[in-house]
Amino acid sequence: MDYFNAPGRNHLFVPGPVNIPDQIIRAMNRNNEDYRSPAIPALTKTLLEDVKKIFKTTTGTPFLIPTTGTGAWESALTNTLSPGDRIVSFLIGQFSLLWIDQQQRLNFNVDVVESEWGQGAKLDVLESKIASDTAHTIKAICIVHNETATGVTNNLAKVRQILDSYRHPALFIVDGVSSICALDFRMDEWGVDVAITGSQKALSLPTGIGIVVAGPKAIEASKTAKSLRVFFDWKDYLKFYQLGTYWPYTPSIHLLYGLRAALDLVFEEGLENVIARHNRLGTATRLAVEAWGLKNCTQNEEWHSDTVTAVVVPSYIDSAEIVRRAWKRYNLSLGLGLNKVAGKVFRIGHLGYLNELQLLGCLAGVEMILQDVGYPVKLGSGVAAASAYFKNTIPLIPSRI
Amino acid sequence: MDYFNAPGRNHLFVPGPVNIPDQIIRAMNRNNEDYRSPAIPALTKTLLEDVKKIFKTTTGTPFLIPTTGTGAWESALTNTLSPGDRIVSFLIGQFSLLWIDQQQRLNFNVDVVESEWGQGAKLDVLESKIASDTAHTIKAICIVHNETATGVTNNLAKVRQILDSYRHPALFIVDGVSSICALDFRMDEWGVDVAITGSQKALSLPTGIGIVVAGPKAIEASKTAKSLRVFFDWKDYLKFYQLGTYWPYTPSIHLLYGLRAALDLVFEEGLENVIARHNRLGTATRLAVEAWGLKNCTQNEEWHSDTVTAVVVPSYIDSAEIVRRAWKRYNLSLGLGLNKVAGKVFRIGHLGYLNELQLLGCLAGVEMILQDVGYPVKLGSGVAAASAYFKNTIPLIPSRI
Amino acid sequence: MDYFNAPGRNHLFVPGPVNIPDQIIRAMNRNNEDYRSPAIPALTKTLLEDVKKIFKTTTGTPFLIPTTGTGAWESALTNTLSPGDRIVSFLIGQFSLLWIDQQQRLNFNVDVVESEWGQGAKLDVLESKIASDTAHTIKAICIVHNETATGVTNNLAKVRQILDSYRHPALFIVDGVSSICALDFRMDEWGVDVAITGSQKALSLPTGIGIVVAGPKAIEASKTAKSLRVFFDWKDYLKFYQLGTYWPYTPSIHLLYGLRAALDLVFEEGLENVIARHNRLGTATRLAVEAWGLKNCTQNEEWHSDTVTAVVVPSYIDSAEIVRRAWKRYNLSLGLGLNKVAGKVFRIGHLGYLNELQLLGCLAGVEMILQDVGYPVKLGSGVAAASAYFKNTIPLIPSRI
Amino acid sequence: MDYFNAPGRNHLFVPGPVNIPDQIIRAMNRNNEDYRSPAIPALTKTLLEDVKKIFKTTTGTPFLIPTTGTGAWESALTNTLSPGDRIVSFLIGQFSLLWIDQQQRLNFNVDVVESEWGQGAKLDVLESKIASDTAHTIKAICIVHNETATGVTNNLAKVRQILDSYRHPALFIVDGVSSICALDFRMDEWGVDVAITGSQKALSLPTGIGIVVAGPKAIEASKTAKSLRVFFDWKDYLKFYQLGTYWPYTPSIHLLYGLRAALDLVFEEGLENVIARHNRLGTATRLAVEAWGLKNCTQNEEWHSDTVTAVVVPSYIDSAEIVRRAWKRYNLSLGLGLNKVAGKVFRIGHLGYLNELQLLGCLAGVEMILQDVGYPVKLGSGVAAASAYFKNTIPLIPSRI
Repeated sequence: MDYFNAPGRNHLFVPGPVNIPDQIIRAMNRNNEDYRSPAIPALTKTLLEDVKKIFKTTTGTPFLIPTTGTGAWESALTNTLSPGDRIVSFLIGQFSLLWIDQQQRLNFNVDVVESEWGQGAKLDVLESKIASDTAHTIKAICIVHNETATGVTNNLAKVRQILDSYRHPALFIVDGVSSICALDFRMDEWGVDVAITGSQKALSLPTGIGIVVAGPKAIEASKTAKSLRVFFDWKDYLKFYQLGTYWPYTPSIHLLYGLRAALDLVFEEGLENVIARHNRLGTATRLAVEAWGLKNCTQNEEWHSDTVTAVVVPSYIDSAEIVRRAWKRYNLSLGLGLNKVAGKVFRIGHLGYLNELQLLGCLAGVEMILQDVGYPVKLGSGVAAASAYFKNTIPLIPSRI
Repeated sequence: MDYFNAPGRNHLFVPGPVNIPDQIIRAMNRNNEDYRSPAIPALTKTLLEDVKKIFKTTTGTPFLIPTTGTGAWESALTNTLSPGDRIVSFLIGQFSLLWIDQQQRLNFNVDVVESEWGQGAKLDVLESKIASDTAHTIKAICIVHNETATGVTNNLAKVRQILDSYRHPALFIVDGVSSICALDFRMDEWGVDVAITGSQKALSLPTGIGIVVAGPKAIEASKTAKSLRVFFDWKDYLKFYQLGTYWPYTPSIHLLYGLRAALDLVFEEGLENVIARHNRLGTATRLAVEAWGLKNCTQNEEWHSDTVTAVVVPSYIDSAEIVRRAWKRYNLSLGLGLNKVAGKVFRIGHLGYLNELQLLGCLAGVEMILQDVGYPVKLGSGVAAASAYFKNTIPLIPSRI
Repeated sequence: MDYFNAPGRNHLFVPGPVNIPDQIIRAMNRNNEDYRSPAIPALTKTLLEDVKKIFKTTTGTPFLIPTTGTGAWESALTNTLSPGDRIVSFLIGQFSLLWIDQQQRLNFNVDVVESEWGQGAKLDVLESKIASDTAHTIKAICIVHNETATGVTNNLAKVRQILDSYRHPALFIVDGVSSICALDFRMDEWGVDVAITGSQKALSLPTGIGIVVAGPKAIEASKTAKSLRVFFDWKDYLKFYQLGTYWPYTPSIHLLYGLRAALDLVFEEGLENVIARHNRLGTATRLAVEAWGLKNCTQNEEWHSDTVTAVVVPSYIDSAEIVRRAWKRYNLSLGLGLNKVAGKVFRIGHLGYLNELQLLGCLAGVEMILQDVGYPVKLGSGVAAASAYFKNTIPLIPSRI
Repeated sequence: MDYFNAPGRNHLFVPGPVNIPDQIIRAMNRNNEDYRSPAIPALTKTLLEDVKKIFKTTTGTPFLIPTTGTGAWESALTNTLSPGDRIVSFLIGQFSLLWIDQQQRLNFNVDVVESEWGQGAKLDVLESKIASDTAHTIKAICIVHNETATGVTNNLAKVRQILDSYRHPALFIVDGVSSICALDFRMDEWGVDVAITGSQKALSLPTGIGIVVAGPKAIEASKTAKSLRVFFDWKDYLKFYQLGTYWPYTPSIHLLYGLRAALDLVFEEGLENVIARHNRLGTATRLAVEAWGLKNCTQNEEWHSDTVTAVVVPSYIDSAEIVRRAWKRYNLSLGLGLNKVAGKVFRIGHLGYLNELQLLGCLAGVEMILQDVGYPVKLGSGVAAASAYFKNTIPLIPSRI
């Protein structure tokens, strides 16, 4: 029942689905239950409360939809917007591209602001559009917090600041799929109206819950939004929240127990410590890339992502060969370059319940693979750079001091 | 991490989510994987082939959508129909009602044929509608194979016969959520165009895969259907099927391995043996209900369901109290009466990887509960009736002979 | 990887190894750990404290030996006695027989007091031996609390009373394998010097921990006992207890975490409630046997066991055929008759984390099997008798009220 | 339920208990079963056959005793020897020391041949003893194949050669705890009479099976050996082997299914490939130690162990601090120096289902720790040395080519 098994542990360094902590695997190791018994609502209630904490919101309403990130996108859009509505959307990589494709297919009027892949969203363009939109024809700003394909983190605080400067009422809709619970994300402070993530990312669960949190303005918008929706309709959830039974249709009991374990792990470590750990892993990875003499796809430090690093390879190397090689020789799973950067970058995901030694093993593997494909890297160089940084920054494990 | 724990094993007799066999629990007890490695496509390929077998189709195209039955409904409809299309739909209980609600909210023109709850779909009405629809304004017939709320199984062969008699081209769309892989279902033979089920039903998985199988006519229809859809769009799946990578967005690796184990169990037991086992469990339950002097909500033998029995209680008893009592005193999970039959029926699910002694334990429990709530049942009477039947019908376990 | 698989859940009603609660299965679902890290001693410390509670001792010293009940026997004997020492030992069934065989092979001088199988230990014979042993040649009394082969529970309080009456210093060594944590057992109050059990019995774990608790007199005896022993030597454990590292050799990390979960379940339910539940299950089983017109192997009510019932079959039936039939047709595991009662009795274990409906399913199965093998039982009769009793005695589940 | 939890995966590099592959964890994730049903004997039969393959014997008889390595030692000795028998035994580290202590406490006459810790067994001394023992007073040679405390592998072929040269009939008893199924071990070719290992070592299971394989001469010796034994007595096993029920007392069903999975993994990878992989890991570790400028405790290349490396630290460093630091800061579990080498060495276990990147992560961690404790290692140096070697030796993963 394992396909192409290999000795030892798979080194999973794609930016999702990520490694599942043993505590979560254990929590999901169970039979089904009747979701109409009192137990599942009691459990759900704690989840809805606690999910808000990782979004840093007290006013948001969470929906734990049995879907993927793609479904969560659709839920965010169809509940708040009507066909024909004008959206400003930023194309900066494969995932923002896919989201824009969805927006267009859902019949919104998408005003695409494109950047070169490896750059962040052009917020100056946003500013000029907002400034000139005195008629408030722009109904929503759609932006990925972290573009998983290029390892670019956008400045969301700045988006809010622009909207506020012009007192523009557009909804602020954020794809936080590869950011929330790993990067610093502040729903209330930044006035985000809808934010989404997926269970298989920072929360380290299997795929299967699209987490959507809607702020008060989004909930209000959902009352008049005319996009057709049933499965993704927040209204049905809100009705069952009122009833205290919570579920308009059958949830995955397993993922609910898994989410409980995931949230417990986050709170046990401390959300700020989780974010700091991702920063350590991201920084170390960038130092290794530099030591290897390679370029980060992310063109500017302000956009550096702490959850995934896209590494640009020399033009004489096919980055897909690196990913294949990693899997075939080292039991290491890296991320492919996608679309415009296919063949040009490979990606190291450093997202989820990972520690420093796991990353160092990955980096050591990448060094060997780089040699395998003909890039003259010095073995140990990236590891040395990363561990020199770790040496000064890894804290003692709080529970073990 | 367990809510309201109770000694011993929970007796799960709701008609879904159903008991998960240990083999499936084991198969899902794993870490995430990179779904872009060669392993997941290799696995997926076997699943798509084998899922067709339990639908008894060689010409259908399966979609394993990360969603629930509600999402599978939406996928079946939006891929094949356009807003305003006329649908004939049968309202015979809570789940057909919810599906009709969805059909209406998706802006189809739904021609609702209602039956008294406890009766099957009025196929004579269908026949007259089809007969008179020489202009072929009816684009689809939507019918639940097995109404989970009332325990009513509809005669799908008859639907096909009516359509064929009048050479009517309407799509034949079937909700097989509580039937497929437990009741006799024959997609190709009956000319079903789209059939759906959910992973948490006869396949005995957690919730999370909406299984949709589309016949050639449905695939053809999907090319012109104008309903907006992205997440549920078959087109994206078909594109990735062509590419051999299979997934337009992230699947649940866990459910894929679980589905592999589920299908293996079905084939090991033999699909016809699985269906025969459900027939034994259903028949025995009906005999017990009769022995208790209670009525089956299903008003006619032809509609008897082998996956769920809705038991009508005397008017002086609140059936919800039976369900509460079952949970609070006997660690037994029964199904509530829903909507029109709330308080009037309780439901015994006999669906999934169950054997006869499990059911007898449930029936013995129900007898005690009936006494608890004041119904003068003779203890042991239902068990005696059921086991007298089992005595003559249970085969030796093939692997153990 | 399953041998002779069968649909649905196996109904495990042997008196050990017993059903493992899901909570324990989850707790053991993990990787190995370094048992020399601070974590395992911290865990072990809680276990040693809490194991004492289920033995009802505050003065005993527990040893969690990586072995089975047979090894626990050997540890109890070799640590407290010297070759040639006189032991009074009661032969009342297969397991006391095996223990006596061990005692003899370990070169003790065993004074065997035999009862007819189905009767308890002859305590009057004990009394006369003790009374006449003014020279205190008897060094130990060895007795099984509950003989698993015949379903006979001995009166341990009476043993203590006899010893005290004559101020006899013999060690009081008890096999509590199928009793402790299910039957009322009081180590301190009854002055038991060594008591043992196995992890796969009332504690509902896999086989692998022989639990031995030694009272102060036994610990004292161990300092001079001359039986050779190394693996089973308490001295090595005591040395590592002093060091705070607890383990003279490698323990099973899995069973330690499992034991933690098992103890938590006992305390959550309440030890007295656990005992009361076993009494309900035992009483109901006996009522069913009576309703079937069959005899309990246990010849007198005072010896009735609440953890296992040995049912005598008519002479024209081979009880082994009942056990084979149970497994081959009903996925039900019953206990064979052993040795002197082979072919004459079959055994229903009602030990561990079981509830009433599980037992009723088993009883319904036994009724069908009895008919299968030609015994004219009335179907439903045993279930009716058992459930009539349950009806008046099962409490509401405390956590669910 | 986790003690002192830390983010990410624990890096387990002690020489046992070792990492458990997911396949084995899954196989053990199950309920108990009746071990007297036909299933467990059917499973056991396959295990006994296949265990012989990893010992490279066709004539040996395996015993899967529910115990630890310490118990397996005891079983090997007490079944083949009588009190007072002269044994030649080699003291080369903590585990041979403990075995000798057991031999002495079991009243054998132990002729101890001691080496400096870090050196192998003095086979020249053996030769002179054997040469002079024309009266054949030496009944057994006891030797550890691989001393886990110092990382020393003895030359077993040479032992056989010495015995054969002098036609000496002494039994050849081998502790293969940290060698069998990881190092090259040839029971039949080397004429080993009894060999043992433990489930938690190369087989990557939890602790709990002491595996003892007895050759024909040992089985013959067991018929007259006078050491008292019951739990460890082979006679009881042999009796139940004859009966085809296999178990004189209750085995751990979990470990049996786990062992099945473990053997399947070995055969899937290929035993020779498993051994080659351990050689790669051992060689790479030694290269790293050299690069760090540190000494291997093993004083001579001929004794280098491929399953564990004991690293000597400079006298100004306490090696225990390295182990503590590894656990407290890096979630890395290393082995302590024991007894004579306490404080002087720390140990890196490279045993079990490990791959190269896992080891490189460990080595990177050790480098940081060495700096932490004041040793001026160059970061990346050991990783570079190890990966330079790996670069030229790691094969493509056969299943993935």
